[in-house]
Amino acid sequence: MRESQILQIIRARIPEAGDDAAIVPFRDTNLVFTTDMLHRKTDFPEQTTPRTIGWRSVAVSLSDLAAMGAQPLGVLLAFGDPALDESSVMEVLEGASTCCEAAGTRLLGGDLDRHQELTLVSTAIGHTRDPVLRYGAKVGDLLCVTGELGRTQAALRCFATGSTERANDLFRFPPRTTWGQQLAGLATSMIDISDGLARSLHLLAQASKVGFVVTSSALPIHPELLRHFTSAERLDAVLFGGEDYELLYTVSKERLRTESGKVIGRVINSGVSLCTAEGEIPLANQGWEHAA
Amino acid sequence: MRESQILQIIRARIPEAGDDAAIVPFRDTNLVFTTDMLHRKTDFPEQTTPRTIGWRSVAVSLSDLAAMGAQPLGVLLAFGDPALDESSVMEVLEGASTCCEAAGTRLLGGDLDRHQELTLVSTAIGHTRDPVLRYGAKVGDLLCVTGELGRTQAALRCFATGSTERANDLFRFPPRTTWGQQLAGLATSMIDISDGLARSLHLLAQASKVGFVVTSSALPIHPELLRHFTSAERLDAVLFGGEDYELLYTVSKERLRTESGKVIGRVINSGVSLCTAEGEIPLANQGWEHAA
Repeated sequence: MRESQILQIIRARIPEAGDDAAIVPFRDTNLVFTTDMLHRKTDFPEQTTPRTIGWRSVAVSLSDLAAMGAQPLGVLLAFGDPALDESSVMEVLEGASTCCEAAGTRLLGGDLDRHQELTLVSTAIGHTRDPVLRYGAKVGDLLCVTGELGRTQAALRCFATGSTERANDLFRFPPRTTWGQQLAGLATSMIDISDGLARSLHLLAQASKVGFVVTSSALPIHPELLRHFTSAERLDAVLFGGEDYELLYTVSKERLRTESGKVIGRVINSGVSLCTAEGEIPLANQGWEHAA
Repeated sequence: MRESQILQIIRARIPEAGDDAAIVPFRDTNLVFTTDMLHRKTDFPEQTTPRTIGWRSVAVSLSDLAAMGAQPLGVLLAFGDPALDESSVMEVLEGASTCCEAAGTRLLGGDLDRHQELTLVSTAIGHTRDPVLRYGAKVGDLLCVTGELGRTQAALRCFATGSTERANDLFRFPPRTTWGQQLAGLATSMIDISDGLARSLHLLAQASKVGFVVTSSALPIHPELLRHFTSAERLDAVLFGGEDYELLYTVSKERLRTESGKVIGRVINSGVSLCTAEGEIPLANQGWEHAA
């Protein structure tokens, strides 16, 4: 079976598993926690450094907390490694710790054992009184995105062309935990873009039972994407190129604040489409795994 | 390098990583969380059922919470599987959910992807006002253990002799979360026996800077160990046979309560030894991975 089919069955059994992170009401607030598994071959180009691997492994979980509007409390990293070479283990931990600190939290522990392929599983825990779910977008809300899109595609192009150091820099994306917290209580729905803008739009649309129209010219494009991709390639890279981990969210016009994102479209009744100079075209529910 | 060497280096860098679980002070209490990685080949005999694999994967993390005296709030399970066969994935989740419910908590979510070897990483989160650490045993305290020892060794013998159903039953050990919570505020130090009684005694002794003398005849032996092991084999199986996940703890004489454990010895100044009819013999710091 495909991952997505199995995940659908799991979601039917564990309702909490349907959002970016699980929510547990606790005292006067909610605890939020999430876990992500990454593998050496599937998730990291060959020239990825151990430091970048450590950073990115915890960044994906911190990004899930950000997408709920949660403040991080700590991160754990479980770690299966074939060699258990001291210097690379330490570099992975260094990268993971630095990423945690950049997000205002700390690496608190984990587990380690020998495994045939480097496998990293990070778990991030946070809290928020106002978790932002994927469900909640209302027709008439504005659609916004944090930061710039295309960073990971630019990184992959740099890996492919031998600009290894630049590629690693780009691959260590900043988890948007600060912006996520600012958006708790403001955004009506939110998701992190882990699978391309188009796929994330469809996930948000399905959960909220709405549609979106995105204005092509409003999309904020990462300068490194502009540098490394032809103008013909850029739009596909942003729409279907995935793993940017920016926050995609909806907000009512009255509560819009420009400091934590850019308006790229609006919520409509149904359908997901892109508005270009040539007209409106439907956006396929197609993501990272199928991108050319 | 060996796992234990790397773990020592990590502990020097992340002080919180030294106990069974990480502790984060939060509101009027402490959040406690822990993660454990298990692999198909290393951690499960070939005839282990998917249901048992799911159960045991979350039970090891719940046991870590128990060893801190924490009440569980929820569990996540990340899951790399080569086949992603629906029925076995569902059986793994069924086992994991049932174990969570037996411990008074729930499976709240996780992650799933395709991986060459079945790899399971569980994370358990709990809370307690009075976390019990490995550090805190005092000379004169009594040494106690919950339940009975040798269950996992009996399971392995049943796997080896083809009693697969009985082996699976024994392998699905109950995490001692209820007893752990009863011991919070009472026990002066605690650890779960994940590596044999002898190794756990040494870990507790090192952390608390004390020693132990254990009375051989007081050790509670699991009836299935009595059934499947000769009298000559039993003591070694209990001392060095590991992975029983019972709680080993110390408590002052005044605060001893017999309902959550049996006295097996006492805290002394230094050294770890076993008191038998023939006299006192030192107990080697030797555990599961080296057992014959």
